[in-house]
Amino acid sequence: MAKDNKNKKVTAITSMSEDFAQWYTDICKKAELVEYTSVKGCMVIRPYGYAIWENIQHILDGMFKETGHENVCMPMFIPESLLQKEKDHVEGFAPEVAWVTHGGNEKLEERMCVRPTSETLFCEHYANIVHSYRDLPKLYNQWVNVVRWEKTTRPFLRSREFLWQEGHTIHATAEEAVAETERMLDVYAEFCEKSLAMPVIKGRKTESDKFAGAVATYAIEALMHDGKALQAGTSHYFGDGFAKAFGIEYTDKENKRVSPHQTSWGVTTRLIGAIIMTHGDDNGLVLPPAVAPIQAVVIPVAQHKEGVLEKAEELRKRLANIGLRVKLDDSENSPGWKFAEYEMKGVPVRIEIGPKDIENGQCVIVSRWNGEKVTVSLDELEKAVSDKLTEAHDGMYAKALENQNKRTHDCKTIEEIKSCIEQNGDGFIMAMWCGDEACEDSVKEQTGVGSRCIPFEQREISDVCVCCGKPAKHMVCWGIAY
Amino acid sequence: MAKDNKNKKVTAITSMSEDFAQWYTDICKKAELVEYTSVKGCMVIRPYGYAIWENIQHILDGMFKETGHENVCMPMFIPESLLQKEKDHVEGFAPEVAWVTHGGNEKLEERMCVRPTSETLFCEHYANIVHSYRDLPKLYNQWVNVVRWEKTTRPFLRSREFLWQEGHTIHATAEEAVAETERMLDVYAEFCEKSLAMPVIKGRKTESDKFAGAVATYAIEALMHDGKALQAGTSHYFGDGFAKAFGIEYTDKENKRVSPHQTSWGVTTRLIGAIIMTHGDDNGLVLPPAVAPIQAVVIPVAQHKEGVLEKAEELRKRLANIGLRVKLDDSENSPGWKFAEYEMKGVPVRIEIGPKDIENGQCVIVSRWNGEKVTVSLDELEKAVSDKLTEAHDGMYAKALENQNKRTHDCKTIEEIKSCIEQNGDGFIMAMWCGDEACEDSVKEQTGVGSRCIPFEQREISDVCVCCGKPAKHMVCWGIAY
Repeated sequence: MAKDNKNKKVTAITSMSEDFAQWYTDICKKAELVEYTSVKGCMVIRPYGYAIWENIQHILDGMFKETGHENVCMPMFIPESLLQKEKDHVEGFAPEVAWVTHGGNEKLEERMCVRPTSETLFCEHYANIVHSYRDLPKLYNQWVNVVRWEKTTRPFLRSREFLWQEGHTIHATAEEAVAETERMLDVYAEFCEKSLAMPVIKGRKTESDKFAGAVATYAIEALMHDGKALQAGTSHYFGDGFAKAFGIEYTDKENKRVSPHQTSWGVTTRLIGAIIMTHGDDNGLVLPPAVAPIQAVVIPVAQHKEGVLEKAEELRKRLANIGLRVKLDDSENSPGWKFAEYEMKGVPVRIEIGPKDIENGQCVIVSRWNGEKVTVSLDELEKAVSDKLTEAHDGMYAKALENQNKRTHDCKTIEEIKSCIEQNGDGFIMAMWCGDEACEDSVKEQTGVGSRCIPFEQREISDVCVCCGKPAKHMVCWGIAY
Repeated sequence: MAKDNKNKKVTAITSMSEDFAQWYTDICKKAELVEYTSVKGCMVIRPYGYAIWENIQHILDGMFKETGHENVCMPMFIPESLLQKEKDHVEGFAPEVAWVTHGGNEKLEERMCVRPTSETLFCEHYANIVHSYRDLPKLYNQWVNVVRWEKTTRPFLRSREFLWQEGHTIHATAEEAVAETERMLDVYAEFCEKSLAMPVIKGRKTESDKFAGAVATYAIEALMHDGKALQAGTSHYFGDGFAKAFGIEYTDKENKRVSPHQTSWGVTTRLIGAIIMTHGDDNGLVLPPAVAPIQAVVIPVAQHKEGVLEKAEELRKRLANIGLRVKLDDSENSPGWKFAEYEMKGVPVRIEIGPKDIENGQCVIVSRWNGEKVTVSLDELEKAVSDKLTEAHDGMYAKALENQNKRTHDCKTIEEIKSCIEQNGDGFIMAMWCGDEACEDSVKEQTGVGSRCIPFEQREISDVCVCCGKPAKHMVCWGIAY
């Protein structure tokens, strides 16, 4: 059976080494995460994919609320004149928005875009409700859909409509706002590591890569199986630029009128793409236990035999009782078919129980992430499954970190970068930079890798810029971005 | 203090009897539920308003999942050709949609509307994924925003963009689909009664009032403080009309190709408007405990005195420990100011604790819904507050039901309807109907009340139509709709 099963899987999806992009798309479809529609560049997020997003939302929302944030909901439309109030912002976003021009049969007096992000709406709102230092800070967030008119799209990674959360906060002082920007980047990094088992590099974006309208953009960058970098979350410090553009002022304790300072930060359904490309393998998805819609699946073997289904249901109940998301698959499909199905869907732990197991008072537990198979006494079921889930998280994180470390290389010259990529394929390159945008562009042109971020954790690889040889200011993490 | 406080409240909002519409708007603004924006017909849902919606979502989502439904997410755009596939549906919705005509700087080849509802998208998806009887039923739901281009708008009751859930299910047989339609109406009615303390009348819409494309529309109708009816939720049975228009077919057990049957059902942020107008009073909002963002607020009296704040915090913790949503307001505002504030915000229970109370080992508990004030021993805090919350729910429900009953009148003739409205003001009129649309229109024209629904619970008020005198088919619930 195991063999049939294996053959089945091999034909099921393209292997990663054969065609990485196709492997990715195959998982999205075969694990029933998404389906295409006639709406170009948009997708249906199917129940199994959406359940992952719900788990991500649930954990992150808890972290936001614990750090004092409140949820709100802004309109989805932005009148053109409102979008134009902050100059850098409109320049960045106007080319990629969807425009609503008609309501029913009437042409609108002023066209409106579907929000690509909501800074302008939050600013208008803050101008209405912030008057005194007593009104500050406001720590708001919203879970909504946004639209950016991308030319080429891929499920989760880049789609015209996507789901995200956008935090928008406003503070009395620059210090507070900067602290918030950093704090939320830490929240994201902690979430990626503790809930998605995904190591990330925290850093600051270079000037050329900042969010439109930001003073500083911080980001977390993760490394995918194919050596490409994925920006998994961003946090922006705006200074008082937006406040000035939108006329937001407050009266401070000395009765002076001053400008407040703002931030915004967001993560998107792109995180699901990151999970696929950080943990997936040639058998399909491998889900981190914290966000897996099904953490353990119970599969009865020879389920027509007396007592098997009853025992399987008993195991399901016991695991549900300790708070696990557990499913019993008592459908008429063969056990082999079911094994392949839940491997494809990345369910962290599979529990097999058949007549012999029942006789011996045991069951078989198989871990998805490393394929390890153990036989455990039924008396120890709860502990054994819980341990396996903890082990899965830790193991997946360690494996991903090892992969990231193995694919991260220090380089001192352009030539070193070139030969490093030739030898090792894509990955993170750590190299020094003088801070000049011309050098940043030149590195990209000569080697193909762009600046991902200036890591918070700096090392001195050399004292000169990898490009021009002038004194170096920062160590930059370079790579090819999704 | 109580007196000052009362004076303060009187000036705070317009009274219901003076100007009901202004009273409603005042509550929306002063309780900080919404704020207006420069986006016409759209609103900001502020943290306190959004928290009510989150509680509604949490409870309903649990009920949906318990009844086997799964959440998905469809695109927000519908290409014009897709919207046009079902004739009645497009006729109903095309005049009130927002059209996206440009993406970035380019004109779209085909314009798309922002979803006013998502039947067409679900149908397209079902056509892709439903092939065999084994694929049925699909019980899907989504929590999203939709847009309908309304001319006149009011917060929560009618806005161009609103939040809702839309369930969309597809079944092998008509019987199953009808049962689902009825089941979900029951879920809505149970939710309104058990979580919102709001009695509703369940019934079927007349032909003229059906959803565009439906075979039958069921609805729950609630009666507001001003005697107007509010449609609080709808559930539609589609037969196989959509399936045929979209080419959805499946192979049944006899290997024949047949059309499946569909339903859809939804409730919206309008429920928040219903809460306001069912329970609110001249002091502001009165929230049902199940969805109140703050169920109990602890207000220290003479908080500068030693030990008061510590004791107040201790009470807060004890109530939080039994799972209540509880807040301690230790701000520098006066207790009187705080009393008025949390009355305006409709917090079900207020707990006052001052030096004398501490000395006597007691606190004062005030119920928002009926103003009742009791002194309880601190030993019994948890039980006392829990009891008060249960009492609040039950009392609010009974009061709303009494109001509904008092404003519901049986009428046998058009003249009776007219004089009933003259005497009693707006409310529900129960009167017989022959089933002829001309009579339905005529009743409305002559008396101003329209058909709200044909209640499931029928009584025979007379045996002839209230309008034409021909044999009656149904008892209809008539009223003026929001």
